[in-house]
Amino acid sequence: MADQRARRRSVAARVAVALCVLGAVISIASAVLPPQGSGYDGHAPDQINGIAWQDVAPGRHPLRIWQHHCLPVPDGASADELRIVYSQPRACWPRPQLAKGVIAPELGHLPAMPYPEDNPPTAEKEELGRHLFFDPRLSRSEQLACASCHDADLGWSDGRRVPFGHDRRTGDRNSMSLLNAGYQEALLWDGRADSLEEQALLALEDPREMNADRHEAAARIGRITGYAGRFEAAFGDPHVSPERIAKALATFVRSITSRTSDFDRFLDDQPDRLNDDEIRGLHTFRTKARCMNCHSGALMSDQAFHNLGLHFFGRTHEDRGRYNVTGEPEDVGAFRTPSLRDVTERGPWMHNGLFTSLEAVLNLYNAGGAHPQPREHVADHPLFPETSRRLQPLRLTQAELDEIIAFLESISTRPRRIGPPEDRPE
Amino acid sequence: MADQRARRRSVAARVAVALCVLGAVISIASAVLPPQGSGYDGHAPDQINGIAWQDVAPGRHPLRIWQHHCLPVPDGASADELRIVYSQPRACWPRPQLAKGVIAPELGHLPAMPYPEDNPPTAEKEELGRHLFFDPRLSRSEQLACASCHDADLGWSDGRRVPFGHDRRTGDRNSMSLLNAGYQEALLWDGRADSLEEQALLALEDPREMNADRHEAAARIGRITGYAGRFEAAFGDPHVSPERIAKALATFVRSITSRTSDFDRFLDDQPDRLNDDEIRGLHTFRTKARCMNCHSGALMSDQAFHNLGLHFFGRTHEDRGRYNVTGEPEDVGAFRTPSLRDVTERGPWMHNGLFTSLEAVLNLYNAGGAHPQPREHVADHPLFPETSRRLQPLRLTQAELDEIIAFLESISTRPRRIGPPEDRPE
Repeated sequence: MADQRARRRSVAARVAVALCVLGAVISIASAVLPPQGSGYDGHAPDQINGIAWQDVAPGRHPLRIWQHHCLPVPDGASADELRIVYSQPRACWPRPQLAKGVIAPELGHLPAMPYPEDNPPTAEKEELGRHLFFDPRLSRSEQLACASCHDADLGWSDGRRVPFGHDRRTGDRNSMSLLNAGYQEALLWDGRADSLEEQALLALEDPREMNADRHEAAARIGRITGYAGRFEAAFGDPHVSPERIAKALATFVRSITSRTSDFDRFLDDQPDRLNDDEIRGLHTFRTKARCMNCHSGALMSDQAFHNLGLHFFGRTHEDRGRYNVTGEPEDVGAFRTPSLRDVTERGPWMHNGLFTSLEAVLNLYNAGGAHPQPREHVADHPLFPETSRRLQPLRLTQAELDEIIAFLESISTRPRRIGPPEDRPE
Repeated sequence: MADQRARRRSVAARVAVALCVLGAVISIASAVLPPQGSGYDGHAPDQINGIAWQDVAPGRHPLRIWQHHCLPVPDGASADELRIVYSQPRACWPRPQLAKGVIAPELGHLPAMPYPEDNPPTAEKEELGRHLFFDPRLSRSEQLACASCHDADLGWSDGRRVPFGHDRRTGDRNSMSLLNAGYQEALLWDGRADSLEEQALLALEDPREMNADRHEAAARIGRITGYAGRFEAAFGDPHVSPERIAKALATFVRSITSRTSDFDRFLDDQPDRLNDDEIRGLHTFRTKARCMNCHSGALMSDQAFHNLGLHFFGRTHEDRGRYNVTGEPEDVGAFRTPSLRDVTERGPWMHNGLFTSLEAVLNLYNAGGAHPQPREHVADHPLFPETSRRLQPLRLTQAELDEIIAFLESISTRPRRIGPPEDRPE
């Protein structure tokens, strides 16, 4: 009887345990397995978090839905699905495709402008810099100003393959845009200037640019009565020196920054600011096109120097680039990665203005860069450089190339117009 | 008996006549009425010619099908249908929507360049002109060349709202592109130059441009040994005069013409050269947008002067335009219609460079032009002008505006690069 009761109890216990296990399995499975038609079939269940793709209204910021889990990119993702993935916090964005060893900070907003300790900004100094920026009397011929090669109408560059300067002599390298130049760690295509102050004096004295002597230029500006009050307001006394001119110019240039782009607004919780092409372009930019190998961070530049194979080593337009500054063989033919912000506004592109369309630029990258063969007379030259191994053929389709350009348009804004002051000091 | 026979014959004759009439009606109807599903329902039958739209393969030139009849645009035409209509001979194109009294020559290929009788072209003269065009020694400061404001990289203009010249003084009007300038009957925004020869000397002497004296400039060029042979080759002897400088420059400028555009190729029996947006844009350009009121002919310019309401009469940037040349009250605020060929390559647009995007330009036309109200101090001024009545609100949709811009891209080509010669005469 007791035996029978014990057996009954044992059976009941086993049934209870079995039911518990079954219940646990069911509840774990319902928590972990994808719901019907989630669009995530084929992905690991723990990436899903039980939310069906179609439950998310396009344009609704998914942050409010997914607090703790990152949604990955489904196979063959639609633009809407990509928009949802990229509307997550940036830590949840798919990892960029990078060459081995490359560290790429995430894309993002421009930070506050950094100012050097020995040249703090004031409104008076910036305004003085603006006057000097447009004043041709800084140049030897008194005909060329900083603004001659850096014009807001032309993306703060000059729209030409290569600029012309004193006696209309042409340079070898494309005039660099001043947009966001204040964020750059090194300036000019070869990074030979460490600060905007230094860059201003280099342009002033370059024989193919303004061709001035810094002391003569300062003396000439010092003789213009209308400048005395402006120097006093900016520096405390009316003394004019090359250093003060450089500091005022650099302060003005630090005010030249990009407007808020559609991409910036996209980052600010406005997922519809990127259209379908642009969002697909963003994804291709990060992944298949490998752009973030060099164009990363808020500036979309790693501020480093790379050789794309456009050095023309041993040919008419040879340019050894960064090597001329460092003397390091690995720097032959390397040029600074330009920021991509506002990139559509300031062609032609590349250090020599080689390409007049972004399509051409992308074709170069799609081919894995240029790989020129040395001509006979430099065949064994120890400095003949190898094209950066970060570049490799990409096999991007025409649609993907177009979408990347659409994305580049979404990070571009038309520069604020800052023209010459009405009152030129006399 | 004979009566009966006669009656039978009469009946037979009547039946025969009736059958004849019926047959004729049937055959006329079958020739005239639209076939099943022709897409032409609702149009007059005699416009149809018995060809069903769907029988025409898109991209196949319909000339081979319709030899003698013009196909009109069906209601709600698709891009493919528009492509077929516009692949017909231009005489068959739908008539443009024009203001009363306007005569608009059809769009077409650029003709051969016309040359003035007293300045026939030679290769030597054109090459001399090219050297002078890039030579800053023509200017008073010896720093500015024609090329300073007219650069192939910038659509043969300068990419700026307004140019700067001697002492970096800025002008009031946008630098005009030299592309196809050789076809223009009058030059400059107000038409004050009748020939390129005259325009060249105006730019040379304008105090806000090159600020030279034509005789001093010629004397300076005459002292440069390297020019003697070039003048001799061009003019028969080495004498340098302002007239010869102008003739050589004008000859060079007449070599600056547009490349063959997609639209040109479309006209040449390549109907697929225009994509769907572009073909819709062409149709809207001709019809609802009324563009051909002024932008007609091969140049897409009527070479006339119109007031769009951008004269700023009585305000800071007042510009009376053509009135300054003619003194005629109806010319106040009127400016020359620029060619639209290569229009996408040479912003900013309008006589004062007001707009940095073609979207903005089209928005102005869509609104029916600007209609500024006179300020109080000029309220009763007899010269305060009325905006051209050719302009009226268009009610174009965003899609239609985008398609017109697509069409403008199809008539634009990237200008041939003509840079400074390697050998500057010394």
